[in-house]
Amino acid sequence: MPLAMSSSVKHAVIVAVGTELLTPHKIDTNSLFLTERLNNIGVEVIQKLVSTDEPEALARALEYAIANSELVLVTGGLGPTDDDRTRDVTADILRLPLVPDASLLGLIEERFASRGLAMPKANRRQAEVPRGAVVIDNPRGTAPGLLLTDDKSKTKIILLPGPPRELKPMFESVIMRGLIGDAGGAHVYRRVVRTTGQTESHVDELAQPLYRVWSTRVPTISTTVLASLGQIDLHLTLVGADRVVSNAALDVAVDELKVKLGSLIYSADGETLPEVVGALLVGNNLTVGVAESCTGGLIASRLTDVPGSSAYFQGGLTTYSNDTKVSVLGIEEELLRQHGAVSEPVAKAMATKTRLLLDSDYALGVTGIAGPGGGAPDKPVGTVCLALAGPDEFLKVRRLSLPGERERVKFQASQNALDLLRRALIRPARP
Amino acid sequence: MPLAMSSSVKHAVIVAVGTELLTPHKIDTNSLFLTERLNNIGVEVIQKLVSTDEPEALARALEYAIANSELVLVTGGLGPTDDDRTRDVTADILRLPLVPDASLLGLIEERFASRGLAMPKANRRQAEVPRGAVVIDNPRGTAPGLLLTDDKSKTKIILLPGPPRELKPMFESVIMRGLIGDAGGAHVYRRVVRTTGQTESHVDELAQPLYRVWSTRVPTISTTVLASLGQIDLHLTLVGADRVVSNAALDVAVDELKVKLGSLIYSADGETLPEVVGALLVGNNLTVGVAESCTGGLIASRLTDVPGSSAYFQGGLTTYSNDTKVSVLGIEEELLRQHGAVSEPVAKAMATKTRLLLDSDYALGVTGIAGPGGGAPDKPVGTVCLALAGPDEFLKVRRLSLPGERERVKFQASQNALDLLRRALIRPARP
Repeated sequence: MPLAMSSSVKHAVIVAVGTELLTPHKIDTNSLFLTERLNNIGVEVIQKLVSTDEPEALARALEYAIANSELVLVTGGLGPTDDDRTRDVTADILRLPLVPDASLLGLIEERFASRGLAMPKANRRQAEVPRGAVVIDNPRGTAPGLLLTDDKSKTKIILLPGPPRELKPMFESVIMRGLIGDAGGAHVYRRVVRTTGQTESHVDELAQPLYRVWSTRVPTISTTVLASLGQIDLHLTLVGADRVVSNAALDVAVDELKVKLGSLIYSADGETLPEVVGALLVGNNLTVGVAESCTGGLIASRLTDVPGSSAYFQGGLTTYSNDTKVSVLGIEEELLRQHGAVSEPVAKAMATKTRLLLDSDYALGVTGIAGPGGGAPDKPVGTVCLALAGPDEFLKVRRLSLPGERERVKFQASQNALDLLRRALIRPARP
Repeated sequence: MPLAMSSSVKHAVIVAVGTELLTPHKIDTNSLFLTERLNNIGVEVIQKLVSTDEPEALARALEYAIANSELVLVTGGLGPTDDDRTRDVTADILRLPLVPDASLLGLIEERFASRGLAMPKANRRQAEVPRGAVVIDNPRGTAPGLLLTDDKSKTKIILLPGPPRELKPMFESVIMRGLIGDAGGAHVYRRVVRTTGQTESHVDELAQPLYRVWSTRVPTISTTVLASLGQIDLHLTLVGADRVVSNAALDVAVDELKVKLGSLIYSADGETLPEVVGALLVGNNLTVGVAESCTGGLIASRLTDVPGSSAYFQGGLTTYSNDTKVSVLGIEEELLRQHGAVSEPVAKAMATKTRLLLDSDYALGVTGIAGPGGGAPDKPVGTVCLALAGPDEFLKVRRLSLPGERERVKFQASQNALDLLRRALIRPARP
C-alpha cells in the first residue's frame, strides 16, 4: 500500500505554527496530545518547535525539523486567512506546486451550504493541495490535513489544523490508517488512576512503596504523579509487545494501588468525577438536586456536562443572594441572621429544602466565600460549608478552608461536594 | 561597559532543555514568563524550541537557535547530575574550554555549609564556566546562570536554570543589569479586541482593509486573528519607543476597528464577556436572573466567576427536567405539551417567570438540546431557544442551531445568551 509508512519510524519532531503561540499568554498544548498518541505506537518526540507564521522563519523551522527527523508533525496555519501560510510554505520548501482539488472544494462548499451559508472566497485556498499530497479529511472543520514526503530525506510531513477539536480526530485517523506505522508491535500502555481529597505528598507517600516494586518487576511499570486543582492523578506506564500481558500487569498494579489508597481513588479508567457520580446514581436508580451559593451553578453545570444526566439530575437552584435563599428555598430569615449565610446550619437547610422542593433522592447545599471580597476574621475567603441530604434522614455536613482565588475556590468546593455525594453512594447509609 | 549588549536586540529564540518536556504530561511554561519580560523591553520571541538533554540533539538545537537570532535564552540542564548537559554542550559548540571558577566554587560550598552539609562532588561541575562567560548569581540554588557570546555570529546566549523559582529572579537581574540592552527604550504594546456572534472569516473580511493600512503606517501595527469557541479575538501589536505615541496609535486602530465591526466587539481591553455584562449591569444599577435547561447552570457559573457579581446576579434556576420547569418556574404543562420543552414559547415563559420569581430587572431563559441524545428531525441536537425578559415588557427571543458536541453546544448557548443580554444593555429598549 503506497500510503503506509515503514514501521521503523521511531522519532518525530512537532512544529506548532502561530504567532500567538509566541506571546506571553498562549502555549502550544496540541503537542501533549500528539506526544501521547505517538508514544502509544512506540514513536518518541525528540524535539518541539514553535514558529511564527512569517513565511521565512516558518520555512527555516520546517527545514530544520525535516533535516532532524523521519517524521514531522506541523500544527496550525491551515485556516483561510492571509496569515495562514503553513500549506504554501511547506509546498514551497518541498518544491511542490499547489493544485486545486475539486472534490475537496466540493466538501468545503457543502460544509458551508449545510449551515445555509455561501462559501467565502478566502476558503478556496483550503482546497489547494501540494501535488502528490495525501488529503486527510476534517470532519469538524474546513481545513483538511495533508501528508507529504520530502523526496530527498524521505521524511514524512503531516500538516494538521490548530484547533484541538479538529486536530484530535484527524490524528486518530492518521494512526488508524497506519500512515505512521506500528513500531514493530511495541505499544505504550497506560492507566490513569484518579484521586481526590488528599494532598500530592500524602498520595505519593501512600503509593511510594509500590513504585519500587513496579520498577523492578518485568514488565516494568513507571509512574508519574500529576497534581491539578482538587485532584491527584497517578499515571502508570508500561511499554510492551503483548497486549494481554501488558494489560494484565497494569490491572494488577491498579489493584495494588486500590489496596493502598482505598476510597481516595474515584476512577481507574479515566472517568471524570461527575461521570463517576452519574454512573453511581444511574446504577442505584437515584436522583440528585443542588442548591448553590458560592459555586454559582458550577456543580449543576459539571453534572450536566455528562451525556444522559437528565436521567438523574433533577435541577439546581443558584441562590446567590440572601433574598433568593429565603424566597426560592424558603430558608428562615432567622437562621440566616443567627448563623450567617455561610454556616453549617444554612448549608443543611439548603440541602434539606432543595431535596423536598426538587423531589430528589439526594440534594447538595453549598454556601461559602469565594472571594476576593466578603471575608471576615472568623470566616475568611475560602470558607465553604457543604451539606448532603438523602433518604432516611441521611445528612452529612462539612466545613472547608479552601486556598486560592475565586475560580479555584469555586472549583474545589464543587469537587468536594461531588466527592461527598460519591462517598455516600458507595457506602449507602443504612438506618 | 563591556557587559552591556547593543541596544539593537530585537529578536530572541528560547530553547527549553529537558527530556521530561517531551512527554505527554509536561510542558515548558518558563517561556511564557521570559516572553513577557522580553516583550516589556521591546524584544520579540520569534521561535521556541524544546530539546532533550541528549548532547547531539541539544547541540543541533542550540546551533539552529544561534544561527537564527541575536539572542538565545536556554533554560534547564544546569544541575549537578549526569543528564545536565547544557553547560558543556554550549561550551563545546562555541569552542570554549571549561575553566573552574574559584569564587563560584566558594559560593556553592558556602550554600551547602550554611545548611550544615558538605558539598557533594557532583556539584563541582556547576563551578566550571566556559572561558569568558559572565556569571549570573543564583540566590535560590546552586546552578549559576551564564552569559556567552558566539564569536562568529555575535549572538548572545544566556543559560538559565530550569526551576521557575530560580529562573525568575535571575532573569530579572539579567534585565536590571542591562545585559540584554533596553532596545533603545522600545517596548511591545498590545490590544486584544474581542468579538462574538460571527465566524472567523466574516470578522476577518470586515477587518481586512485595516490590516493593510496599519502595516504601512508608522508605527506599524501587526494583527493576529484568534478563533476560539464562540469568540473571535484580534490581537494588535506594535513595537514602539514612546509609550504615549504607541498607546495613541493603538487607540486609533481600535477605534477604526470599532467602526468596521460595531457591536460585534464586546471588549477592547481583555475583559471577558461575563465581565463586560457585569460592568454594564452595575453601571446601570440593574440585576439579572437566569433559568437554564440545556446550559445546566453554566450561565450562572460564568456570571459568578466575576468578583462582585453578587451586586447584580440575583440567582439561577437550573430546571433541567420538565417537572422542575412546572414545579419551580410555574410553566404551564399545556405550554410544554403544545410546543415541546425546546421552543420559543417555553424559553419566553422561562425568562418571564424567572424575572418575577427572582425579582430581577432582566432574566434569561435558555432551553435546548445539548446532545448527544434527544434530537429529533425538526429539532436536531444543537437546537437552542433563548429569551431575554426585561423592564417595560421588553422581550427578545432567538432560535439557534449550534454545531458540535455537548460541552460546545452548552458553551456557545451561554455565549449567545450573555451576548443577547449585552446587546440589550448597550441599546436599552425605550417604550
